[in-house]
Amino acid sequence: MNFSSKILEESVKALSSLPGVGKKSALRLALHLVQDNTNKAVKISTALTKLSSDIKKCTICCNISDHDVCNICNNPMRSGKSIICIVETARDVMAIEETNQFNGKYHVLGGVISPLEGIGPTDLSIDLLIQRIKQENTQELIMAVSPTIEGETTIYYISKLLQDMEIKVSVIARGVSFGGDLEYADELTLGRSIVSRVPYNVQS
Amino acid sequence: MNFSSKILEESVKALSSLPGVGKKSALRLALHLVQDNTNKAVKISTALTKLSSDIKKCTICCNISDHDVCNICNNPMRSGKSIICIVETARDVMAIEETNQFNGKYHVLGGVISPLEGIGPTDLSIDLLIQRIKQENTQELIMAVSPTIEGETTIYYISKLLQDMEIKVSVIARGVSFGGDLEYADELTLGRSIVSRVPYNVQS
Repeated sequence: MNFSSKILEESVKALSSLPGVGKKSALRLALHLVQDNTNKAVKISTALTKLSSDIKKCTICCNISDHDVCNICNNPMRSGKSIICIVETARDVMAIEETNQFNGKYHVLGGVISPLEGIGPTDLSIDLLIQRIKQENTQELIMAVSPTIEGETTIYYISKLLQDMEIKVSVIARGVSFGGDLEYADELTLGRSIVSRVPYNVQS
Repeated sequence: MNFSSKILEESVKALSSLPGVGKKSALRLALHLVQDNTNKAVKISTALTKLSSDIKKCTICCNISDHDVCNICNNPMRSGKSIICIVETARDVMAIEETNQFNGKYHVLGGVISPLEGIGPTDLSIDLLIQRIKQENTQELIMAVSPTIEGETTIYYISKLLQDMEIKVSVIARGVSFGGDLEYADELTLGRSIVSRVPYNVQS
């Protein structure tokens, strides 16, 4: 591209480092910011500076947090039940929180075991999890990782480590989506949803 | 959305102010920046700070520039021909520069006359253009604005102002695209391309 401005070029380069933002989109965004008169560029710049310097990992659950211990770990209303839900990323915590169906605590693994990508158990927060389970005397673990081969491997690996401990391990239900068309569900999911069928109650 | 971090929330809010970036995309970008360890957030932040504070409008052609006068206006190799190409935005300058087919100078209007959007001639850099034409003794104006009703109105308005001056005014050719399928060209464009047909030279 023929930039008339070095400053513009730098911004386009920086913005196009974002996932899913190509050179042309980055240029569109940068030009929008140049023409904008509501100080958007300054606002984004300030927010991202803070994001890079002030954001922390919760020392207990590894979730993204503004403080050393995140809001969820710090919430006494959520501490009693001693259920930990294992997720891959901070995004998953947000997704589950939006359902309003879980009132326990989380543990963010930071990914799943994937030999192909060179991610082993030590790259994840599994040690911290085991230590935490012992300390908190956790009674149930809910595995809410992706239903992929890597996810299953991770579930298997963690369950193995917990074999000698008295702890209930469950996996989130997998089956056809609500509103989903059976016709379009893949065979594995549909098969699983038949095997894991649940009794139907007329009252409910 | 249930944010576990106020800092993350601020970043998502700032990023989602960009055109074409919704809340979910902004969250994806922000989480990517949190997890990234190549300092992308700092780089973007620095670039945007500069963009908002240091970027200028060329005092001659109104193009985006790092200095008071842009590289193109400052280039003596492009000064002799006294041809000015009228465009709407700085993006259009870049697009034409990429074709390598124009060696004159530009004038960025900053938009087109659009009564519906409340943009009148005084909102554009038309006065500056007229002044410039007199000063530079310009011999030709190429109108490279969008082929829309607003664009045509703008061309008409500028041409009217130049009526008493000895200056050639031309409009960029409109017709079917290279590689375009005649079947899919709209009637107006196809009609125009027949009316404005050009002689065919066997040699060329």
